[in-house]
Amino acid sequence: MILVKEAKNIILNSTQNFGVKEIPFLKSVGSILKEDILADRDFPPFNRVAMDGIAVDFQEFSSRLRSNRQLKFKIEGIQPAGSAQITLKNPENCIEVMTGAMLPKNANTVIRYEDVTIENGIATINIDEIKDRQNVHPKGKDGKLGDVLIKQNTKISAAEIGVLATVGKSFVKVAKQPKVMIVSTGDELVGVDETPLEHQIRRSNVFTLVSLLEKLNIPSETAHITDDKPILKQKIATYLQEYDVLLFSGAVSKGKFDFLPEVFKELGVKKLLHKVAQRPGKPFWFGRKIFSNADKHKENQYKKNTIVFGFPGNPISTFVNCLAYFYPWYYKSVGLSVAEETAILAENVTFKPNLTYFLQVKLSYKFGHLVASPIAGNGSGDLASLVHADAFLQLPNDKNEFKSGEVFPVIRYR
Amino acid sequence: MILVKEAKNIILNSTQNFGVKEIPFLKSVGSILKEDILADRDFPPFNRVAMDGIAVDFQEFSSRLRSNRQLKFKIEGIQPAGSAQITLKNPENCIEVMTGAMLPKNANTVIRYEDVTIENGIATINIDEIKDRQNVHPKGKDGKLGDVLIKQNTKISAAEIGVLATVGKSFVKVAKQPKVMIVSTGDELVGVDETPLEHQIRRSNVFTLVSLLEKLNIPSETAHITDDKPILKQKIATYLQEYDVLLFSGAVSKGKFDFLPEVFKELGVKKLLHKVAQRPGKPFWFGRKIFSNADKHKENQYKKNTIVFGFPGNPISTFVNCLAYFYPWYYKSVGLSVAEETAILAENVTFKPNLTYFLQVKLSYKFGHLVASPIAGNGSGDLASLVHADAFLQLPNDKNEFKSGEVFPVIRYR
Repeated sequence: MILVKEAKNIILNSTQNFGVKEIPFLKSVGSILKEDILADRDFPPFNRVAMDGIAVDFQEFSSRLRSNRQLKFKIEGIQPAGSAQITLKNPENCIEVMTGAMLPKNANTVIRYEDVTIENGIATINIDEIKDRQNVHPKGKDGKLGDVLIKQNTKISAAEIGVLATVGKSFVKVAKQPKVMIVSTGDELVGVDETPLEHQIRRSNVFTLVSLLEKLNIPSETAHITDDKPILKQKIATYLQEYDVLLFSGAVSKGKFDFLPEVFKELGVKKLLHKVAQRPGKPFWFGRKIFSNADKHKENQYKKNTIVFGFPGNPISTFVNCLAYFYPWYYKSVGLSVAEETAILAENVTFKPNLTYFLQVKLSYKFGHLVASPIAGNGSGDLASLVHADAFLQLPNDKNEFKSGEVFPVIRYR
Repeated sequence: MILVKEAKNIILNSTQNFGVKEIPFLKSVGSILKEDILADRDFPPFNRVAMDGIAVDFQEFSSRLRSNRQLKFKIEGIQPAGSAQITLKNPENCIEVMTGAMLPKNANTVIRYEDVTIENGIATINIDEIKDRQNVHPKGKDGKLGDVLIKQNTKISAAEIGVLATVGKSFVKVAKQPKVMIVSTGDELVGVDETPLEHQIRRSNVFTLVSLLEKLNIPSETAHITDDKPILKQKIATYLQEYDVLLFSGAVSKGKFDFLPEVFKELGVKKLLHKVAQRPGKPFWFGRKIFSNADKHKENQYKKNTIVFGFPGNPISTFVNCLAYFYPWYYKSVGLSVAEETAILAENVTFKPNLTYFLQVKLSYKFGHLVASPIAGNGSGDLASLVHADAFLQLPNDKNEFKSGEVFPVIRYR
């Protein structure tokens, strides 16, 4: 049995690059960017008017102010947004300008409408305090042509979508997602639409996993295989060929019908770990099948591996192990760096076994502190308790007493 | 000009119920649940074996232990998961049991394989410390038939999906989403695929808004209208009929071509607010068109309103106002209660104007504290700065000096 930390290291050493695809930018939210996004021109691309008002020549304004002359400027014309630049012909005049417009030639300062009175084509400036180049957003201030605006490996959000549109990236390179099959085993399981007999329950873990992967924008397929070794072996052999990742729920512990570890071995899936010193989720199995070049996948750009996550069948075990192991494996595979979050334990907790304890907690924000309040669950089979929590606090194996106020890593799922 | 708090109150008093629809449960992640989810049987539905091992009668075990007799139990049979309950016929014997199985009749305690040696059909228990009913997850412990497992108005996540599957809710009632049209105005804007002339820029705000709504699972449509009042009026009249919500970016300020407030008035959209004491995003316009029952929407279950959010055209203004106003409006409309988050300011900030300041910040977790570090932006036009931040810290209007260590509400967008 190995420690959680060791398990995580093994898994992070088995990541895989699934390549790059080009997709319409508006479909890319949640994807991991696989190219640097450069400014295709200066931003702003011209001296941009930042307020609705009038544009004047600041020298003229200052000299009138100094010599106590009237601050009246004849309006020469209008510069709307989206029109070619016009010119202030006479520096004693002004031009009405709109937010987003080019600053007219020979003008350099904008006074907003709120500080001006306009009558009969004459604008009177009602304030003295005016700064040179005020209310002008200068060309290139936010970025120069060729600047990197978004770095490769950024997770694309609404903020990035705006920049992609601005620089004309209607198609964008993002990380390809792994092709994932999620398999449940267990003869006690029936479909969601079926009415279980007394000794049966409905399948749920595969759907939980589908949803946890959906959060990462990973589409997946699901299958159920009965606890029959030859059938398991035959189906898994096919899945190993056809998918990048197989996720299993169940059949990895010590039960008489926990055939998966044997089947994996017989199919040449190398066991990289089995059993982690943690609760829940201890019987976790992880391995990899490396196909030789003689295999049908040799045409791929990347050497074909299939990664196998064998999660224990209890609902909380499957859930926490997907978050604790599959998520970081995925992040590293696609090049995303995710900062570890920490939270403050709200109550004393005692946990005797020499195991890392993934404690179910409800999170709240108090004065800028992220506070984790334990949720009383009934053990790893208590699916409903996941509804009342929103994260797992990761309490280390080398302590038994965890005090209110102490800080631990937190893995959230909402 | 009104305060941010007043603006928010007005908006939250204009929420609307869009009704309920029933969808396949696996498509419901991110939706707001509109029914209580009840347990369709006890959970667990039977006394459930929680470890692979042997099941014995605890009285028999204790009496042997007391009288120092051998802890050897003949294996009478196997109880796999998914099989009908069998019976321990002779209390001096045991039954092999698998995780997830029904506890055999007449047995009450499970000893895991790790603590047992099995040879020639006899299981020898190697430990003395055994508790009555250990490793048994008792029927009904997690919930009783009829218990509410998930409350109405919960946002559905992977945790809820597992429960929905378990209770057989293959279809589930969720909040209908509003039908949204997002409109940009401004003659300076060209398409993402086009090459702008010097005085033009590409459309970006509508796509940012599409992405911000996508985060709420709200599909939306987009349109661009040139700064031409008759065309604006004609198109908006149609949109008011056809959509529940219109989002505009631009044309709500003081510019010569900022026709929207006039057009809204002429079309009978009641202005509920215009201009909020905030930076960025001050020229924000919000209103509502109430259609009488004579209108074509009279067949609807709900009185037909159309809500109009007129966001200022600067990228950061549109972005922050969508988060600060549209998001809470949507949450309340669909019945979701969202806790306010707070973060700790990492540096002193001075902001003189008597306006609420939405400061762009980068968030980090330090010892369970959520720390907000200001990002230097170049004003409301600086779209690229959104990429470097991940939230807005909301600094109140009635102060000018904000000290490192002080706590303020935070609105995150990643």
